[in-house]
Amino acid sequence: MEKTDLKLRAFVAPTPTVIASAYDENGRTDACTLAFVMMSSHFPPCVTIAINATAKRKTLKSILQTGAFVVGYPSFEHAKEADYLGVETGYNADKLANIGFTTSKAKMVNAPIINELKLSLECKVVHTVTVGSHTQITGEIKNIQADPSIIDENGKVSMQKLDPMVYDEEAFVYHRLGEPVLDAFKPGATLKKALMQS
Amino acid sequence: MEKTDLKLRAFVAPTPTVIASAYDENGRTDACTLAFVMMSSHFPPCVTIAINATAKRKTLKSILQTGAFVVGYPSFEHAKEADYLGVETGYNADKLANIGFTTSKAKMVNAPIINELKLSLECKVVHTVTVGSHTQITGEIKNIQADPSIIDENGKVSMQKLDPMVYDEEAFVYHRLGEPVLDAFKPGATLKKALMQS
Repeated sequence: MEKTDLKLRAFVAPTPTVIASAYDENGRTDACTLAFVMMSSHFPPCVTIAINATAKRKTLKSILQTGAFVVGYPSFEHAKEADYLGVETGYNADKLANIGFTTSKAKMVNAPIINELKLSLECKVVHTVTVGSHTQITGEIKNIQADPSIIDENGKVSMQKLDPMVYDEEAFVYHRLGEPVLDAFKPGATLKKALMQS
Repeated sequence: MEKTDLKLRAFVAPTPTVIASAYDENGRTDACTLAFVMMSSHFPPCVTIAINATAKRKTLKSILQTGAFVVGYPSFEHAKEADYLGVETGYNADKLANIGFTTSKAKMVNAPIINELKLSLECKVVHTVTVGSHTQITGEIKNIQADPSIIDENGKVSMQKLDPMVYDEEAFVYHRLGEPVLDAFKPGATLKKALMQS
């Protein structure tokens, strides 16, 4: 079928929804909700986030000042609060206090963990670059903290229990993650073997 | 609840599954499946991918040589093929021919579009950096091509019609995207307004 050219835009879907948090220069916690996030290295484990640099986001300033941040994964249980943290600015309000969220200092980096989130990656900034409207920040993951309630029998995080928010900026909605329907690497490996024997 | 420290790792879940494609020095198409991908700028629109640099991935080499790549989104209809493209290497096999995929040259950049994929972002490399085991490549999106079959009445991509693969490396499975359950920005804006009036 003939393809259609779409209006140029960042294609933000489907993406995980996370909350980045950091201490500001007074030791207060900044936090903002993001959909620009990816894992970026296995060894050492790294995560990269991108934050709007032109909008002078308070959380961005704090991350660059302290060299540390936490990536937290909200569950749908906290969807309203997560959405609010992406809408309000820390220059106007004590965002976390407003929604009843509390924080603890991370174990391995100088950044705050939001206690109510069930999964948090403690990150040390190892690279930053500004490209276009956003600053990309790569953090080496120094520790992962999880609620025991979301851990399965293999010590891994159960997606069903985490119930993460998947963002879709085409329709401006959050999706629930659907059912697991296919094992990774098995169908590909089977196909590879069949092709090599044919 | 007291948190548990998990084994250090890149936390690859939930993430979109994409296929990066590029021409090699002989004009042949390389393609590999990736879960390390994010949008990274609104103005101009950019996408960043990270590819294992230590494994000498053929697609990485080709992207760096040509300065261009395409990010394609496989639908579940092509799940087996997408999985295979992440398992096999282009050094051993003509991967795309093996699975019956065909390509066309992108309109705006020197890179191949996989015709069978319903959504493709044409990208020009604007920044690269290697951090840890992976090279991060930021591409400015120069064009978006979509099958008319996945476009809704607003000219946006319908997630239900695209049926994207969401990868979960905790359980090594692909999830279907679930139902949209909450509008973005509305609950946060309502909460913000209520808090300002209280």
